[in-house]
Amino acid sequence: MAAEKTLEDLFHDTLKDIYYAEKQILKTLPKMAKAAQSAELKAGFEQHAEETEGQVERLEQIFELLGKPARGKTCDAILGIIEEGKEIMTEYKGTAALDAGLVAAAQAVEHYEIARYGTLKTWASQLGMQDAVKLIDETLAQEVATDKKLTQVAESSANQKAAA
Amino acid sequence: MAAEKTLEDLFHDTLKDIYYAEKQILKTLPKMAKAAQSAELKAGFEQHAEETEGQVERLEQIFELLGKPARGKTCDAILGIIEEGKEIMTEYKGTAALDAGLVAAAQAVEHYEIARYGTLKTWASQLGMQDAVKLIDETLAQEVATDKKLTQVAESSANQKAAA
Repeated sequence: MAAEKTLEDLFHDTLKDIYYAEKQILKTLPKMAKAAQSAELKAGFEQHAEETEGQVERLEQIFELLGKPARGKTCDAILGIIEEGKEIMTEYKGTAALDAGLVAAAQAVEHYEIARYGTLKTWASQLGMQDAVKLIDETLAQEVATDKKLTQVAESSANQKAAA
Repeated sequence: MAAEKTLEDLFHDTLKDIYYAEKQILKTLPKMAKAAQSAELKAGFEQHAEETEGQVERLEQIFELLGKPARGKTCDAILGIIEEGKEIMTEYKGTAALDAGLVAAAQAVEHYEIARYGTLKTWASQLGMQDAVKLIDETLAQEVATDKKLTQVAESSANQKAAA
């Protein structure tokens, strides 16, 4: 009989989930940057793509701390969230509402990540993995900052343009 | 030729997305309450199911303000998030880590809703729909409070039990 699953298994499973998600996001951000109409939003997506590379590396360090290979596991949630972003890119292409839709899609991505990293941080702390807590905290702070920046873009430009 | 899509279309599309999502959540919460091991978490899911009914009604009021029928639109994001929750229920059934996994699944749901309602609120304000802003704000406050309560459950009991 297989041993009973533990919090460490849950931590490992969720790490694989977000590792897969980050790699999908890394593929999607350049498409969003290309689609964005405003220079500010385009630059924002490009900057976040760079940050995401660092986040992937941090996840690989956490796999190492666990003594496990860095391997992803299909994450249906991020696939669904990205699919909705793609619909926006198609349906609102060339319209004044496109950037507002892209910001909304990106914020759905950020909130998924905030939820997952928040959970991972609590579990790492519970498991006594202080080095992992520090790595997760760094990424979590970036995701929260990105979400705030997106809200500013939404409030200051993308939506006013869309409503004009 | 069809008229160019506007921010009002984006608002309407996103309203249909979250309306569909809330109805899916309403179907899922009783299953999560049934699966939860701790009485505290069980009660939390039951309470949130009641709140969700009110949230669905508020969405119907916003459809009315828009002069549109209350109709959902398949939301791939919530289907993916719920699918991951179901995997947890199956894979961690009967283990001490189950409640920690259920809390994590519920927080992914909450963050999706927080992202969507945050976006809808900004757009409603941009569109001058003050009554919609008020309705969205009420729901948003409930989602944020639920997320905080879930963090408390995670920190105080579910994870300690799982790590024991």
